[in-house]
Amino acid sequence: MKHKIFTLVLTTLVAALVGCGQKADSAKTAALGKPMTDEPIQPINAANVSNPALVQLGMQLYFDPRLSKSGFISCNSCHNLSMGGTDNLKTSIGHKWNQGPINAPTVLNSSLNVAQFWDGRAADLKEQAGGPIANPGEMGFTHELAVKTLATIPGYVEEFKKVFGTDKITIDEVTKAIAAFEETLVTPNSRFDQWLKGDKNALTAQEVQGYELFKNSGCVACHNGPAVGGNSFQKMGVVEPYKGDSKAEGRAAVTGKDADRFNFKVPTLRNIEMTYPYFHDGEAKTLSQAVEIMGRIQLGRNFSKEENADIVAFLKSLTGDQPSFKLPQLPPSGPDTPSPQPFDAKPVKK
Amino acid sequence: MKHKIFTLVLTTLVAALVGCGQKADSAKTAALGKPMTDEPIQPINAANVSNPALVQLGMQLYFDPRLSKSGFISCNSCHNLSMGGTDNLKTSIGHKWNQGPINAPTVLNSSLNVAQFWDGRAADLKEQAGGPIANPGEMGFTHELAVKTLATIPGYVEEFKKVFGTDKITIDEVTKAIAAFEETLVTPNSRFDQWLKGDKNALTAQEVQGYELFKNSGCVACHNGPAVGGNSFQKMGVVEPYKGDSKAEGRAAVTGKDADRFNFKVPTLRNIEMTYPYFHDGEAKTLSQAVEIMGRIQLGRNFSKEENADIVAFLKSLTGDQPSFKLPQLPPSGPDTPSPQPFDAKPVKK
Repeated sequence: MKHKIFTLVLTTLVAALVGCGQKADSAKTAALGKPMTDEPIQPINAANVSNPALVQLGMQLYFDPRLSKSGFISCNSCHNLSMGGTDNLKTSIGHKWNQGPINAPTVLNSSLNVAQFWDGRAADLKEQAGGPIANPGEMGFTHELAVKTLATIPGYVEEFKKVFGTDKITIDEVTKAIAAFEETLVTPNSRFDQWLKGDKNALTAQEVQGYELFKNSGCVACHNGPAVGGNSFQKMGVVEPYKGDSKAEGRAAVTGKDADRFNFKVPTLRNIEMTYPYFHDGEAKTLSQAVEIMGRIQLGRNFSKEENADIVAFLKSLTGDQPSFKLPQLPPSGPDTPSPQPFDAKPVKK
Repeated sequence: MKHKIFTLVLTTLVAALVGCGQKADSAKTAALGKPMTDEPIQPINAANVSNPALVQLGMQLYFDPRLSKSGFISCNSCHNLSMGGTDNLKTSIGHKWNQGPINAPTVLNSSLNVAQFWDGRAADLKEQAGGPIANPGEMGFTHELAVKTLATIPGYVEEFKKVFGTDKITIDEVTKAIAAFEETLVTPNSRFDQWLKGDKNALTAQEVQGYELFKNSGCVACHNGPAVGGNSFQKMGVVEPYKGDSKAEGRAAVTGKDADRFNFKVPTLRNIEMTYPYFHDGEAKTLSQAVEIMGRIQLGRNFSKEENADIVAFLKSLTGDQPSFKLPQLPPSGPDTPSPQPFDAKPVKK
């Protein structure tokens, strides 16, 4: 397998807390050279979990399809942590098989984003987390019904009490917990980061060459920082207009400004090998295609076949340690938990 | 949380194998009395994993939505291992939101079943595993396309080679691996099993009373053995016909015999607290309802409120250690991997 699987021993805590984002030191990161501190890309740091009970609750909620009307769709359905935090679909499938309007961005390293969603309409992960639950074309529920459902599940009532010290479950608590879990979903220790930290053997000559080209040709103007993107909005189609069928207009939907049309949040390139297909419309199937199109419409560059391959090789070195945790167990519904309504059929007999 | 979460340290193997079904000895199982060897229910044994690489491959396939046409539905979608190996829906959601005809039975302890599916149409787990992949209303794919997809994923090609020693991926290998994983999904160490093994403190007086009633009133005639069911086909509605809207006719669909109409495989009662709603049509929402209906139509018994509560209390003691493993990471698709077709739209540009 090309991507790494990680062999960490999870700390087992009495309350079944799961270590998130913790990682063993790699022997390979033993510095063989000086760390490169003047690069436009910086290494990703491991997550610092200050409230493991909150994170554990957020993990359960993240995996819980009872936050959807159908009882079938969870956060993990479209931001699948077995698949780079995405669904690997052009656009997502929502309630009743609704075709989503936009490509699901990865949840990995999303805490490093300047804002959430492609158009940045949510300021942070907590604000974002409430969106899909109440979106009729995504989880198809309401905040009120989601909270009402959780409040009838004895295991959750106990956990919310433990974590928040209150008997009343609120959407604010729900989204806070999900965001706390998502903040642990960082991917340190990529080969590129090992290289940045001084291990000159962590990259091949081709990968280094690809990185040099990535810098010199201007990609790095937008794709920089620890997340190699995620920290600005930029126009899709600077030199040449982008041609696609998507109706998404980007940042303009938030600001109302014509100047923001087709301005999208620059996606992170971390774990980019796993987060295909690419762009807000998912129209680029392969990394090679994405590099070709970006070079041409953003930079006016037609990369040669070799140059394209070099950049792709560099990009694949950005895959870091994937979040490693035990599949969470969800507390069973109680007798008063409303039945999911996937088909809007008559309610289940009670 | 009422159900247990398990605090085992997973053995971490170089090949990222995950220990399945392994469990720590519970201090509570230290025998305080003589094991009860003459009971109609026997304890569940932990899984004995002889080929961990095969199990690991099967786990990945179990979680991989690329075995479906849409790229969205995996085995775990309807047999969710965070939720008792079921979807907790009356009937399942399949390809394009198809409403399934029957309640998804739990995958937990399914290796103990006399046959698979409610009507027993598959002899074993291996045969079962191929069914949903090719069912137009479930995963909506074909065996040929599923295998073709896997064969373009470099990580899988490598793993199949390692596990089966061949370059050619076949559906036979795919279903063999999934079945090997499923065989590890047993749930030992329930409080009831601890009690059977001699720990008299493992059950409350009410739970013991419920068990005695369960035996004496005849439930145990069908719900017996290690899985507390799963080992015979029985008519739904012995004393009184079962009234429901489901068109499923059970075993008759396999044998063609009129005598087998409404004969269904007796479901396991292991982890029954987690596998709601109940019956082949999912019409019983709560355990209390299920006990009431079963008593009446199978045994001609009208359990009092107290009796019903006692039996329910006993049934909840059958929840065992849930499978405990790290969420698997799936190998990324390659450049030639066919794009999923959730919407039958035009193919993604290549």
